[in-house]
Amino acid sequence: MTEDFSIERVGQCTFNSRLDSGVFINDNEGVLIDVTLSGFQKGQVKPNFLEKAGPRKKIFFNPETSRAALVTCGGLCPGLNDVIRAIVMVLWYRYGVREVFGLRYGFEGLITSCNHEPLVLTPEVVEDIHNDGGTILGTSRGPQEPALMVDFLLEKKINMLFTIGGDGTQRGALAISREIKKRGLAISVIGIPKTIDNDILFTERTFGFETAVAMSQIPIIGAHMEAKGVKNGIGIVKLMGRESGFIAVYATLASSDVNLVLIPEIPFSLEDVFAYLKERMSRKRHAVIVVAEGAGQEYVYGEGTNASGNKKLGDIGLFLKKEITEYFRNCNIQTTVRYIDPSYTIRSAPATPGDSVFCFQLAENAVHAAMSGRTGMVVGIWNGHFVHIPIQLCVKGRKRIDTSGLLWQSVLDNTGQPRKLT
Amino acid sequence: MTEDFSIERVGQCTFNSRLDSGVFINDNEGVLIDVTLSGFQKGQVKPNFLEKAGPRKKIFFNPETSRAALVTCGGLCPGLNDVIRAIVMVLWYRYGVREVFGLRYGFEGLITSCNHEPLVLTPEVVEDIHNDGGTILGTSRGPQEPALMVDFLLEKKINMLFTIGGDGTQRGALAISREIKKRGLAISVIGIPKTIDNDILFTERTFGFETAVAMSQIPIIGAHMEAKGVKNGIGIVKLMGRESGFIAVYATLASSDVNLVLIPEIPFSLEDVFAYLKERMSRKRHAVIVVAEGAGQEYVYGEGTNASGNKKLGDIGLFLKKEITEYFRNCNIQTTVRYIDPSYTIRSAPATPGDSVFCFQLAENAVHAAMSGRTGMVVGIWNGHFVHIPIQLCVKGRKRIDTSGLLWQSVLDNTGQPRKLT
Amino acid sequence: MTEDFSIERVGQCTFNSRLDSGVFINDNEGVLIDVTLSGFQKGQVKPNFLEKAGPRKKIFFNPETSRAALVTCGGLCPGLNDVIRAIVMVLWYRYGVREVFGLRYGFEGLITSCNHEPLVLTPEVVEDIHNDGGTILGTSRGPQEPALMVDFLLEKKINMLFTIGGDGTQRGALAISREIKKRGLAISVIGIPKTIDNDILFTERTFGFETAVAMSQIPIIGAHMEAKGVKNGIGIVKLMGRESGFIAVYATLASSDVNLVLIPEIPFSLEDVFAYLKERMSRKRHAVIVVAEGAGQEYVYGEGTNASGNKKLGDIGLFLKKEITEYFRNCNIQTTVRYIDPSYTIRSAPATPGDSVFCFQLAENAVHAAMSGRTGMVVGIWNGHFVHIPIQLCVKGRKRIDTSGLLWQSVLDNTGQPRKLT
Amino acid sequence: MTEDFSIERVGQCTFNSRLDSGVFINDNEGVLIDVTLSGFQKGQVKPNFLEKAGPRKKIFFNPETSRAALVTCGGLCPGLNDVIRAIVMVLWYRYGVREVFGLRYGFEGLITSCNHEPLVLTPEVVEDIHNDGGTILGTSRGPQEPALMVDFLLEKKINMLFTIGGDGTQRGALAISREIKKRGLAISVIGIPKTIDNDILFTERTFGFETAVAMSQIPIIGAHMEAKGVKNGIGIVKLMGRESGFIAVYATLASSDVNLVLIPEIPFSLEDVFAYLKERMSRKRHAVIVVAEGAGQEYVYGEGTNASGNKKLGDIGLFLKKEITEYFRNCNIQTTVRYIDPSYTIRSAPATPGDSVFCFQLAENAVHAAMSGRTGMVVGIWNGHFVHIPIQLCVKGRKRIDTSGLLWQSVLDNTGQPRKLT
Repeated sequence: MTEDFSIERVGQCTFNSRLDSGVFINDNEGVLIDVTLSGFQKGQVKPNFLEKAGPRKKIFFNPETSRAALVTCGGLCPGLNDVIRAIVMVLWYRYGVREVFGLRYGFEGLITSCNHEPLVLTPEVVEDIHNDGGTILGTSRGPQEPALMVDFLLEKKINMLFTIGGDGTQRGALAISREIKKRGLAISVIGIPKTIDNDILFTERTFGFETAVAMSQIPIIGAHMEAKGVKNGIGIVKLMGRESGFIAVYATLASSDVNLVLIPEIPFSLEDVFAYLKERMSRKRHAVIVVAEGAGQEYVYGEGTNASGNKKLGDIGLFLKKEITEYFRNCNIQTTVRYIDPSYTIRSAPATPGDSVFCFQLAENAVHAAMSGRTGMVVGIWNGHFVHIPIQLCVKGRKRIDTSGLLWQSVLDNTGQPRKLT
Repeated sequence: MTEDFSIERVGQCTFNSRLDSGVFINDNEGVLIDVTLSGFQKGQVKPNFLEKAGPRKKIFFNPETSRAALVTCGGLCPGLNDVIRAIVMVLWYRYGVREVFGLRYGFEGLITSCNHEPLVLTPEVVEDIHNDGGTILGTSRGPQEPALMVDFLLEKKINMLFTIGGDGTQRGALAISREIKKRGLAISVIGIPKTIDNDILFTERTFGFETAVAMSQIPIIGAHMEAKGVKNGIGIVKLMGRESGFIAVYATLASSDVNLVLIPEIPFSLEDVFAYLKERMSRKRHAVIVVAEGAGQEYVYGEGTNASGNKKLGDIGLFLKKEITEYFRNCNIQTTVRYIDPSYTIRSAPATPGDSVFCFQLAENAVHAAMSGRTGMVVGIWNGHFVHIPIQLCVKGRKRIDTSGLLWQSVLDNTGQPRKLT
Repeated sequence: MTEDFSIERVGQCTFNSRLDSGVFINDNEGVLIDVTLSGFQKGQVKPNFLEKAGPRKKIFFNPETSRAALVTCGGLCPGLNDVIRAIVMVLWYRYGVREVFGLRYGFEGLITSCNHEPLVLTPEVVEDIHNDGGTILGTSRGPQEPALMVDFLLEKKINMLFTIGGDGTQRGALAISREIKKRGLAISVIGIPKTIDNDILFTERTFGFETAVAMSQIPIIGAHMEAKGVKNGIGIVKLMGRESGFIAVYATLASSDVNLVLIPEIPFSLEDVFAYLKERMSRKRHAVIVVAEGAGQEYVYGEGTNASGNKKLGDIGLFLKKEITEYFRNCNIQTTVRYIDPSYTIRSAPATPGDSVFCFQLAENAVHAAMSGRTGMVVGIWNGHFVHIPIQLCVKGRKRIDTSGLLWQSVLDNTGQPRKLT
Repeated sequence: MTEDFSIERVGQCTFNSRLDSGVFINDNEGVLIDVTLSGFQKGQVKPNFLEKAGPRKKIFFNPETSRAALVTCGGLCPGLNDVIRAIVMVLWYRYGVREVFGLRYGFEGLITSCNHEPLVLTPEVVEDIHNDGGTILGTSRGPQEPALMVDFLLEKKINMLFTIGGDGTQRGALAISREIKKRGLAISVIGIPKTIDNDILFTERTFGFETAVAMSQIPIIGAHMEAKGVKNGIGIVKLMGRESGFIAVYATLASSDVNLVLIPEIPFSLEDVFAYLKERMSRKRHAVIVVAEGAGQEYVYGEGTNASGNKKLGDIGLFLKKEITEYFRNCNIQTTVRYIDPSYTIRSAPATPGDSVFCFQLAENAVHAAMSGRTGMVVGIWNGHFVHIPIQLCVKGRKRIDTSGLLWQSVLDNTGQPRKLT
């Protein structure tokens, strides 16, 4: 890899952080990307690393004259309100920033003509919002014109913008930061990556993912009970995961009652799936299947894209239900196939305690990054340390499950499913 | 009403219950059906009443030579395992019955040719089953030939059969008890009504209903968050309720965040629904709709029946989603409509604590009824007392929401929806 | 019983309820107190009944000029915010009352010199409060001078006061209503009984009780796991129940893992408890005990009273832990005794869905009662109907478990504990 | 650091792992201990690393002739049954080991004279145990004689022992492995560290910790509601953490409603605590305090040690309640102080989904380590990779919160409490 991991800044830090006794991170500190011994041995001379996040002794923006804005974009994700709350709290109490605006309904909130009045955010307003799922700011899908959004920031005298959203959102944030740079402005744009699928590059975890895995247990338990409650019962649960199967895989490991998990990373043939299920039926008389929404898309036709620009997916869950039912009918084996699509109940849930901790720390580090004048970056976590990631790097592709790695091997051990389904 | 509320018996009670210091109910005790003052004034001479359930001092069956069997039929319902466990425990510890069989997969378990080996049920086997949803016996849908089922009971020397199931199941139980009577046998058939919809006549509550209402809060909260998370968001949740809207109505009252509830008891015109939603959008910018699966069936075509003999329902939730989306599009109002169908996650859940208490008491009273030689009846609860209900009465129709009563008025007060939607 | 069940009124109803198409209850309607057949036969001529609650066609107060106030007193109880929310919503939307005040910190909120500024309550203020436990109004314990409280009501021009609290609170409410009567004022005082112990006479259920039973499962499961996790483990859980064991009993039935429950209604000797435990240890090697806080007070010395005027209780849970440990040590049997006192985690919880429904309906009926000019009463539920209960009747004593009734018999069947422990 | 991170082995691996297409880890692979850039720059020549865990291509033990045993020691911890289940499943299905024994009641289960018959563990036996808290094996505290335990292993022909327990247990495991070495036997002893406090060195997470943090939210929410429900309310929650405050700190960050957290790592003066609380009361009128059980032990006298050899702690929660109450009484400020000690409800809980995943992976890696003949080690996770840690290293001290690090800074930002309380 010869990628550029350096982080842009809007200017030089000249203000003192007001906490004289606090803990500060040195600007030169980094976190190695590869921490294995073999990686170390190969990367001896100059290893790749990500800039370490955290509070800086010198900051760029004067808190007394700063105005910050937050925006949430795309679909709901557990923890959005935790992130909003923490950004406001840390700006207010730690740095003394007194003007924070919540822009409404995604990037529409930065378009003057959309007429969405920003919310004025204070500690009192956000105090209890972390107990609810959803986002108090509202959200919308799709991009807006960067030039118009920068006009809005200028007009409102905003010098820090926090963009909470998925890769589409962060691409939008990058476009905004480039427009800002072109105009020579000192406005920081800091992203907090929001992908319930946990598929952002260079961050080992995204907020909401742990909650999604936890919430997935409800339909999996339901599918298990339905499957065991009849002779030859089969329960199918469709979980999120457009291009990466992390939720399906972790939900499976958390349950230990799943017998087959299908993910976008691994093609499968129906024949092999049928053969495995038939064998299992004869042995155990029930089966639980978890399928990521993006798996097996070659079998189902999704047309067009949604407002976020993502390809519409065909419904692989319904397809499997139909095909499996037909297969067993043709075999003269009586089965009952139940299909559960928990969908919105997962992404609208409030954050688990573990996600709440993570949201607080992510938000804190986003604020530190903004105050120190970083821009065009998102905050993430890598090898246990919070880090800064250039947006252009993290939107280059998607983190996916390495099907020749230990995680997938754990899944095979857990489910008993065959290594090859093709 | 000139209905016959008397309960059949297979013979006269001659054995002493082994608890000499226990509490016993007099065979003449009853529970008034109408407990209002006006009802009393009308019914002065001879009011209608249901036989009061409970332990009898004299019992019919000799515990030492008794063999009991249990069967669970139809769809899953929270509390099935609680009921199974309690029947076994009370037979074993209270009465000393040592032979209890769990028949597998519904009425199939009483058909010799189906070859389902019964489970031998002991306290050790059932000890922990109440923590899980589903049924350890398995279930199936649909009736079987009564004569064959009575042959099975005879062959296995079973003298008490507990049928846990819905109205189809209880009709089957009635047929069995008639065949038994025809042959002059002393076998008790006692039903425990299982209808998650809570629509059995003469019982104010059925097990699993409270759990269904509780579990419904998850999708309703999800729909609420999704609706509030976007401009003009509409969340639709489809809940169970084929012919009666009790789950939808109680789930609505429990939530207090629902703005419109549609139930089978009340026809609605789409125009009136649209008009109300449009008005609400302009005022509040979001709405939550709960729809019982049996509502508005005139708009959707369900064909045929399922294995239980119930009419297949069209998907009113999907229909509403489509129609509402189209309506607002035609009005040039941007909306986002989310549809959640929690389905199997609700009926496969373990019982809430309140339902567990109820299951224990229902099961206890079913055992008391069986031991005293009652037959052709189900146990229920009426005005706070456990009672005996002749099967032929409780399958005569369905309990439905009185739309000119106080419950529905509470719903109107809670949701703010118009009294008339036609 | 020759008790007087009639309800006082502040004047004659002359206003029309603004819902012309609504459902209304006739002022003469009642609900029989005893609904058994034997009770009917005894009470033929003139049975005792409670006035049926519900909306009246004619009301006393003019909504346009009415001012309502709410106060919450005593300890926390699940559902307080549900009740507050529903009273505000029904006053506002159903009747059109636009001035509603939340008095702060219990009866202190009616004492001018305490200087607690009332909260102005509108639908916007209360919209989401039902998701939280506690009370947004705050609470305090203990009575205040009735004359001063009536002065406050007069000064603030309040003509409806809703008192949400236990029997001490309702005695206070009665004193207020008598002072009002003495002065010839037209101010309604309506109580909503709040007793997590469910020990109010003439109401079969109080709000928060179901939640308390549900929340009790967490420590009971914990005690069960701790007990089973070691050889001869004993887990003790202390639950609420000063004079009545309802929470302990229902929590036990809900769990089915409890082996001994001790309640205030039944004295016990330590020797008999020890003997039963020793026998169980030898058979099962673990035991779970639930003890109501008011049980066995003869063994522990509580001194004085708390601010609510209730006798302070000695800690029977700690006492049992100590005594049982000692007993087995003296028997040379190695045991591990764990004691869990969940205390405040139960009463500070948000309401279960079932309790939320109940709170809404209670609050609705309290508003109906107030608007119709009733006073000196509380709302309750009896034989499934909401009713009006004169305060002086319901504070005359406490509802307690009938230890020769079916409920206690169910407990014996469920736990296997001996009928007699003395 | 010149510590020795190398792992002992009982012999050379000669068997082929039966999965020919599996994923295998090279024996030379390691995971760097310090992954910061500055650490890298200092450690250039030969960095410290931990051996990477995972399946090996060559294994030491012949599965067909292997006998494994598991033992759980010390207090309960969420996830014990997950770990037991996964060890059995992976031994059975992945490696084909068919003889697995569950030793009862801790190290007593390895002492012949204690007469605890081992459980025979098969997939059927352990299938559903992960849904429950506790441990199906039972546990006990305290060490046993290593020589006797090795005699037991020999007698039972066990060649793999999995010790699931805290640092006392792992010290015992080390003693066993040394006795084995002394006798020249080929028996692997592999530890799975169990410390709910998360205070084991060289592992960034221990199982049960996430669950403990999650379960802590119930009492914290309760304390918050109690505190807000009265004027000047103070809620105190005592959480686990004998020498390290991780649970208290993460529970605080997860809640965001805590105003003061006291941990063993930081001494505090009562005067400074009082001053902060008084200031907060005047500003906010309520406060929530979380205190780790090991904090402030200089104020409370715990005498002696428990059976595990840990120093008995004084009850700092009760002490704070008493002192704070007295302080405010002396200031003539009316407060209500509530104290919640959730204790056993936390450690007896079933694992959260996230902990279940972690337990499965830990157990898997323990089995891999045992099959490859490693011994005298525990499995852990470091920088996101599962690793092998020599027991003597991980019991050398305890992982504690770095009070000059970013985590503690996050706590200060979250609670608003003063940096210095002395």
